[in-house]
Amino acid sequence: MSELLDDAVRELSRLPGIGRRTALRLTLHMLRMDEEEVRRMTAAIDRFRSDIKYCARCNNLSDSDVCTICSDPSRDRSVVCVVEQVGDVLSIENTRQYNGLYHVLGGVISPMQGIAPSDLKIDLLLENIEKGGVKEVILAMSTTVEGETTLFYITRRLARFPDLKVTNIARGIGFGDEIEYADELTIAHALHNRTPVSR
Amino acid sequence: MSELLDDAVRELSRLPGIGRRTALRLTLHMLRMDEEEVRRMTAAIDRFRSDIKYCARCNNLSDSDVCTICSDPSRDRSVVCVVEQVGDVLSIENTRQYNGLYHVLGGVISPMQGIAPSDLKIDLLLENIEKGGVKEVILAMSTTVEGETTLFYITRRLARFPDLKVTNIARGIGFGDEIEYADELTIAHALHNRTPVSR
Repeated sequence: MSELLDDAVRELSRLPGIGRRTALRLTLHMLRMDEEEVRRMTAAIDRFRSDIKYCARCNNLSDSDVCTICSDPSRDRSVVCVVEQVGDVLSIENTRQYNGLYHVLGGVISPMQGIAPSDLKIDLLLENIEKGGVKEVILAMSTTVEGETTLFYITRRLARFPDLKVTNIARGIGFGDEIEYADELTIAHALHNRTPVSR
Repeated sequence: MSELLDDAVRELSRLPGIGRRTALRLTLHMLRMDEEEVRRMTAAIDRFRSDIKYCARCNNLSDSDVCTICSDPSRDRSVVCVVEQVGDVLSIENTRQYNGLYHVLGGVISPMQGIAPSDLKIDLLLENIEKGGVKEVILAMSTTVEGETTLFYITRRLARFPDLKVTNIARGIGFGDEIEYADELTIAHALHNRTPVSR
């Protein structure tokens, strides 16, 4: 009917979770937005994609060479939380419970998807620790097979720092989860690592 | 953390049905797309928004002054299907059951939202009919209060063409709908307008 419409719908539906119907709905909605407003959106996306950098210290997303977290003097530089990806940093920051630094691996070891340890920013992590000052590394990996593999691999690489404290985030039943629907591994782990109830 | 990221997320989340979480997921996904690919998407959106036209005859979306449907010589020019919006044309075209022309009103009469008959392309419809050649007008409005109001208003305006056949799309129980969950008005109408079963 319209190649302009078809092009916009086809391009938008390349995004994950955006099917043709949703892409069409979004595209038609843009007709009700000011042209200026649409252009501001596309410009923000273009600027993000072309100008975004990765922090030279922690591999987090950054507008400058070193990210705002790494350059913040109020953060505790003796603790480094290792995460798989940028989204994990945002999730942990949203809790406002963590004041240390991060290290973004940029993925997980996955032989299935052809991602080797050398594809992740593991060497950079070791270099940072070698420079001194880091007392604890918190490993905050997903509880997937790939996450556990990555956890195991990094733990082994960190063995050469005998004074370094290496911790794993707690595994167990999440808040809001029902025992009935939790898998056996999680339940077994949660039972084994039970904590005393204060009374 | 990053103004570039924040800007892109904020702009994307202006779209309907795209919350902050989804906008963040989409934005981070764009990092895994080629910069070229992202730019092709934003360019398609910008081109659509700035270059799209409305057909001078039927008010449908069009890349040129007259849309591909109105300028297609194989379409039956004696039937005009009146719809609320562009998406309706696409839905009807997808059925491949209709070979006439369309007329896109660009909305429905809605005193609540301040949309008066003069805000819709109703005069253009009457002008087209006055030019001659149209034998039937199919009114394909939604079964909302606004849709019914618009239907009623247009029917009255069309009264000055006594030879014109004016029809309404069939109302009834949709395919895949269960009687139990249909509203009383629909059931009553479907009962009243029952059709003979061929046997």
